[in-house]
Amino acid sequence: MTDARFEVIGRDGPARRGTLRLPHGDVPTPAFMPVGTRAAVKGLTSDAVEALGADIVLANTYHLHLRPGDDLVARAGGLHAFMGWSRPILTDSGGYQVFSLAARRTLDEDGVVFQSHLDGRACRLTPESVVDIQARLGSDVAMIFDECPSWPATEAEVAAAVDRTVRWARRGRDRFLELRAGGAPEVPRATPGQAQFGIIQGGTSPSLRDRSVEGTLAVGFDAYAIGGLSVGEPTALMYEIAAHTAGQLPEDRPRYLMGVGMPDDLVECVARGIDLFDCVLPTRNARNGQVFTRTGPLNLKNARYAEDDGPVDPDCRCPTCRRHSRAYLRYLFQAGEMTAAALNTAHNLWFYLDTMERIRKAIEIGTFETFRREFLDAYSRRPNPI
Amino acid sequence: MTDARFEVIGRDGPARRGTLRLPHGDVPTPAFMPVGTRAAVKGLTSDAVEALGADIVLANTYHLHLRPGDDLVARAGGLHAFMGWSRPILTDSGGYQVFSLAARRTLDEDGVVFQSHLDGRACRLTPESVVDIQARLGSDVAMIFDECPSWPATEAEVAAAVDRTVRWARRGRDRFLELRAGGAPEVPRATPGQAQFGIIQGGTSPSLRDRSVEGTLAVGFDAYAIGGLSVGEPTALMYEIAAHTAGQLPEDRPRYLMGVGMPDDLVECVARGIDLFDCVLPTRNARNGQVFTRTGPLNLKNARYAEDDGPVDPDCRCPTCRRHSRAYLRYLFQAGEMTAAALNTAHNLWFYLDTMERIRKAIEIGTFETFRREFLDAYSRRPNPI
Repeated sequence: MTDARFEVIGRDGPARRGTLRLPHGDVPTPAFMPVGTRAAVKGLTSDAVEALGADIVLANTYHLHLRPGDDLVARAGGLHAFMGWSRPILTDSGGYQVFSLAARRTLDEDGVVFQSHLDGRACRLTPESVVDIQARLGSDVAMIFDECPSWPATEAEVAAAVDRTVRWARRGRDRFLELRAGGAPEVPRATPGQAQFGIIQGGTSPSLRDRSVEGTLAVGFDAYAIGGLSVGEPTALMYEIAAHTAGQLPEDRPRYLMGVGMPDDLVECVARGIDLFDCVLPTRNARNGQVFTRTGPLNLKNARYAEDDGPVDPDCRCPTCRRHSRAYLRYLFQAGEMTAAALNTAHNLWFYLDTMERIRKAIEIGTFETFRREFLDAYSRRPNPI
Repeated sequence: MTDARFEVIGRDGPARRGTLRLPHGDVPTPAFMPVGTRAAVKGLTSDAVEALGADIVLANTYHLHLRPGDDLVARAGGLHAFMGWSRPILTDSGGYQVFSLAARRTLDEDGVVFQSHLDGRACRLTPESVVDIQARLGSDVAMIFDECPSWPATEAEVAAAVDRTVRWARRGRDRFLELRAGGAPEVPRATPGQAQFGIIQGGTSPSLRDRSVEGTLAVGFDAYAIGGLSVGEPTALMYEIAAHTAGQLPEDRPRYLMGVGMPDDLVECVARGIDLFDCVLPTRNARNGQVFTRTGPLNLKNARYAEDDGPVDPDCRCPTCRRHSRAYLRYLFQAGEMTAAALNTAHNLWFYLDTMERIRKAIEIGTFETFRREFLDAYSRRPNPI
């Protein structure tokens, strides 16, 4: 990467307002990336996701490698052509899914051998093969293959994961640069200007985070992600480690906090210098009947909404709130209508994307601290809405 | 009804081009009504259904009576307000569902007692209560409660159903006129200008159809539906009976062929004087991976589409075909992603609605017979597309 990829255009304390330039378009940061694990945001069409204002989506390397296969996606011209999405895409490395989804797996220095959760077929992922898969997928951002220990883990386990992730980062970077230099013409690169992000591990130990940062920066990536958080540790500790780690990362590169989080986490972590987020919460919770408002989450299953003619959030201008009542959404959810998932997901993504938009505006005009205080004053994690 | 409800603005042989004026808007006919059984077209939002160009949708009295309840819908201001749909709605009478879905049912002259398929609760529907339920729902069009015998049935069974349906039609009409005259203030009428359609039964017997027409016309309704077809009888026989029955119905009233049909059925039955259709085929088949093209249905499950980069139908301008390939749709379906249902349903509804639009244009300019011949020459019911 050159600095041309990321420009910080404003600051308000540690919070940064930036532009991430990717092959398929610019992403204004701080940004939230809706999760489209299997090349679709569950329940929504690409048209709908675009209309909600998503500038970038995330898709999953592990899932797409198993089905439909990165070879097939490459022959279709890459993931953008395959899924009909013209804006940027980030693909995660699949490491997290290998550890959480695969039936049986054996990990060694070379990589991971596992059985597909789909058909039991034996598969192998290495730091190099994950680069090749993402080259074929042609995402705008490829993540390195990391080892993410479960939580809690011993200091020794976390240290071993940090060191292995750094060694894997070197191998992944070397392979990435080899492809970029045309050294492996058998691997089609669907998106030539693809960026590669490193991943910082180290659990909840500041010193191990430092060790991970040092090793990963020595390899050198277009940007740095903070992995291994939001895996069960207390929220305050997550904030502390995110802040500590962000503070060690270069000012001129985007910082991506993986798998985070709740709406208030977005605000709190922007306040700690984070630029990018992804999380399944808005989409998964929508399918489970939970929708977000400025005062907190709302569980549509609750009988109190059965005759509530108001929208989910009176302040919301999303397509769902402009047209439908809590009573209708509750009824659709109770009836098992899949339209419920579409409407709730649209609302939750709008809420997340609108929160990011409000964060960006606040940073631009230097009122982020006021915004943050007002947001947190209004927002409660306990379902207890308006 | 007055003639103000329906205006025939053009004819081409027996095919009619008309305008059906309903409280929530005008419906250009011939028209197809997408089925939103439980106050939602499965997998699509009202926004999406509107954008596809649906001028009217159908919802189901039986389902909505059981859940969320017509009382609740009435308190929400009627079905339009409840489901966020501002265009016309037709509600069927629930008779068909009582006969096909309810666990146990006993039919007598008064009506039907049945057990809810949801919770086993005992419920009762009568010709009068079905009018009251639809008044509370506030649909633009309420259907009478009819007895639809299964197919095949004996001549005696069909004759008994015809006579009972006529007696029920009289009771339903009387109750409808009573409500309209303000004689039952305890029943809220969410849509004051609601129309009521009678239903012609008679199976595949022309003489029993005539008997049904005679009895139903003597009661007098805003329009007449042809029920009891497309229940298993051969297609040619269905066309013959539809044509025969349509020919007995008044020229100045819309003719609605219930539950029909395949794309070629729409064309063939417009040619026999039908003005309105509804059918679950485009929506249900979409969820099962079958999409329609001008040359016939296409089963996305088929492996031949795994790497087919073309749209479902090259001639189609629907949101799905403008953006997505057969390969992507096949993959989403195989992966069980609910986005597949949304995309396939949008395509199929567009195809049906666009076919109706082409039918209307052809009638307007007097080329319906040419259109019909070309449509049928291109279209095959066997999955064997472009």
